[in-house]
Amino acid sequence: MDQSDLKAPMWQLSERARKLTSSAIREILKVTERPEVISFAGGLPSPATFPAERMRAAADRILRDEPAAALQYSATEGFLPLREWIAKRYSVNGAQIRPTQVLITTGSQQALDLIGKVLVCPDSAVLVETPTYLGALQSFSMYEPRYVQVPTDEHGLIPEALTPELTAGARLLYAQPNFQNPTGRRLPVERRRALAEFAKSAPFPVIEDDPYGALDYAGEPLPTMLSMAPDHIVHLGSFSKVLAPGLRVGYIIAPEELIFKLVQAKQATDLHTPSFTQRIVYEVIKDGFLDTHVPTIRELYRDQCAAMLAALERYMPEGVSWNRPEGGMFVWVNLPAQIDSMKLLEEAVAQNVAFVPGGPFFANEAQHNTLRLSFVTVPPAKIDEGVSRLGALIRAKI
Amino acid sequence: MDQSDLKAPMWQLSERARKLTSSAIREILKVTERPEVISFAGGLPSPATFPAERMRAAADRILRDEPAAALQYSATEGFLPLREWIAKRYSVNGAQIRPTQVLITTGSQQALDLIGKVLVCPDSAVLVETPTYLGALQSFSMYEPRYVQVPTDEHGLIPEALTPELTAGARLLYAQPNFQNPTGRRLPVERRRALAEFAKSAPFPVIEDDPYGALDYAGEPLPTMLSMAPDHIVHLGSFSKVLAPGLRVGYIIAPEELIFKLVQAKQATDLHTPSFTQRIVYEVIKDGFLDTHVPTIRELYRDQCAAMLAALERYMPEGVSWNRPEGGMFVWVNLPAQIDSMKLLEEAVAQNVAFVPGGPFFANEAQHNTLRLSFVTVPPAKIDEGVSRLGALIRAKI
Repeated sequence: MDQSDLKAPMWQLSERARKLTSSAIREILKVTERPEVISFAGGLPSPATFPAERMRAAADRILRDEPAAALQYSATEGFLPLREWIAKRYSVNGAQIRPTQVLITTGSQQALDLIGKVLVCPDSAVLVETPTYLGALQSFSMYEPRYVQVPTDEHGLIPEALTPELTAGARLLYAQPNFQNPTGRRLPVERRRALAEFAKSAPFPVIEDDPYGALDYAGEPLPTMLSMAPDHIVHLGSFSKVLAPGLRVGYIIAPEELIFKLVQAKQATDLHTPSFTQRIVYEVIKDGFLDTHVPTIRELYRDQCAAMLAALERYMPEGVSWNRPEGGMFVWVNLPAQIDSMKLLEEAVAQNVAFVPGGPFFANEAQHNTLRLSFVTVPPAKIDEGVSRLGALIRAKI
Repeated sequence: MDQSDLKAPMWQLSERARKLTSSAIREILKVTERPEVISFAGGLPSPATFPAERMRAAADRILRDEPAAALQYSATEGFLPLREWIAKRYSVNGAQIRPTQVLITTGSQQALDLIGKVLVCPDSAVLVETPTYLGALQSFSMYEPRYVQVPTDEHGLIPEALTPELTAGARLLYAQPNFQNPTGRRLPVERRRALAEFAKSAPFPVIEDDPYGALDYAGEPLPTMLSMAPDHIVHLGSFSKVLAPGLRVGYIIAPEELIFKLVQAKQATDLHTPSFTQRIVYEVIKDGFLDTHVPTIRELYRDQCAAMLAALERYMPEGVSWNRPEGGMFVWVNLPAQIDSMKLLEEAVAQNVAFVPGGPFFANEAQHNTLRLSFVTVPPAKIDEGVSRLGALIRAKI
């Protein structure tokens, strides 16, 4: 919508709302809904992985046997059996997680909003990876922090870079150790240990956001930082990538004293996550369903990733580099320094191919010669075709 | 939970989070979950009114026919057919509401949070009724406003009290014109007109929060302020009281330029309201179901209200007064000035009766000799019994 069309009076907005602007990328990407566009832009999981029939049976069972509870207001903390299931799931490698450490959220995005609400003040420092998850920047920005980018390399965040100078005044450090959005990088176990050790003495929490952790192609997950320092890590999880995002069920695992504040903030924010969707999730997973279901998602995404990597190998000219993800949904591409991926997007969309430019994933100084490719919803033949077009566009600029 | 039990490090919190404290009332009311307690405290609708079988059929139909869409990420604005239904529903009395003016929220509570996010800055003035809805105070307080109480009488907000002095610097005026929580008052049509006129020249929006509007016992709803000044009123609605609260589906109707900002704020807050629950609501209501369903709720609540009023008449000593609601879920009771309803609650709970003291519903100076009674979930015989015990406790204090 063009704001100049608007006739109603514009009331005085909050400072945070005045900073919100329409995203140029979003406008360009609107065309990607056309069926002829090969879109590597979406962050959507593949609907082929949604266990719809199982959810249908669960919904039916719940509305038959416990409609009054499933349709009534319920506790802000979330559905207790689901919290217990999550606590048990995370009580591994010697860590003991109590159900009172678990808060159910309306998707993982709400977890980010609540953390911002409870921890971030205007101009307080928030440490983020370089680049970092755009949705986290959007959430935290509502609370007007000052971002500090933590240096990274091809393995992710560099723990040694967390010097007292860099971290002074920080309210939190935000990281996605598994198959990060946008880079697809996985943080090695030694760095996890270093970061967990850092968290033990830091005067602020390390936020371990982990929506993609279950999606490692080899089925060999690395230990979470939560398991290494359960009293000092705030862990965010989600059922969006292992069941379905449309239910909007995520969770926060944190020390009880932070949960206590987060619950109050959540009460003011949406009272509670829908009782019905929480019960559907629990009903679907309670008998170990994820243990057989998640491997089928891993397998699909691994094959899709292989198709993307093969196509990049085939069509990208020299001077273009990318990583080889061990899991997740994204590949990160570095173009020659002179190519601005925002301009490239305009040309690509004209040729019915789409991706997300890398710039918006940087909190401060952006590397505009980067882009994110998502490969999970496009059939392999289309991946080949789409990357071929992209490769030709890039080649013409070198 | 007692915070002194906590062992984990307490990290530095945001200013807004530091102000959050455990509610004494909440602690006392925890005991009301015991089955022997007659509780007039809850604000829950009666589960007898939930159309569970209809929702079961809707959930089944949706997960059979359109699982990929119902379980996938979806637009932040909400499910378009539902937005169209709402726009049409409110296009009455000459007002034309467009679907682009409708944003679906995760319950009406989220509408309050988003409005606070977009309009309220620290120390900016927020105008509220005296008393006002506690949940609105909780939402807005996250954005640290300065509250200004607008004088009221037994009919609700007094429009003439909105002088330039009182309203200077305000970012919004928040009101519940229909069967207000906590007082049960309904704003007369002349005052609605006066307030709508006020809104037309005010430099800030009037927020018309209307969760209870459909619940007028006579089935003769008063026109909304939205219909009187569609470009200057922000209207909040909810399916919680006419279908079921556990789905968490509410909505905001506002000028497009405010919706534009609210959508961006919502994207940062929870991306979107669950696709599945939005579709269930639409599936249940699309064929006119509410037109036959809502009258059954009205009838039930009218009878429950009559039982409460009869019991108050029977058992309350002289010096106690209350209103006679024409709809909704609450009666507001004024005690003799020397009785503090907070202390009364402790004694009442010891006798297995509960209510909500009036104090927390006041933004600033509170009238502590007030209390809110909810009558919709307690059977009439128990209403009689509970009010009898309350009456005896009060009589002993006069």
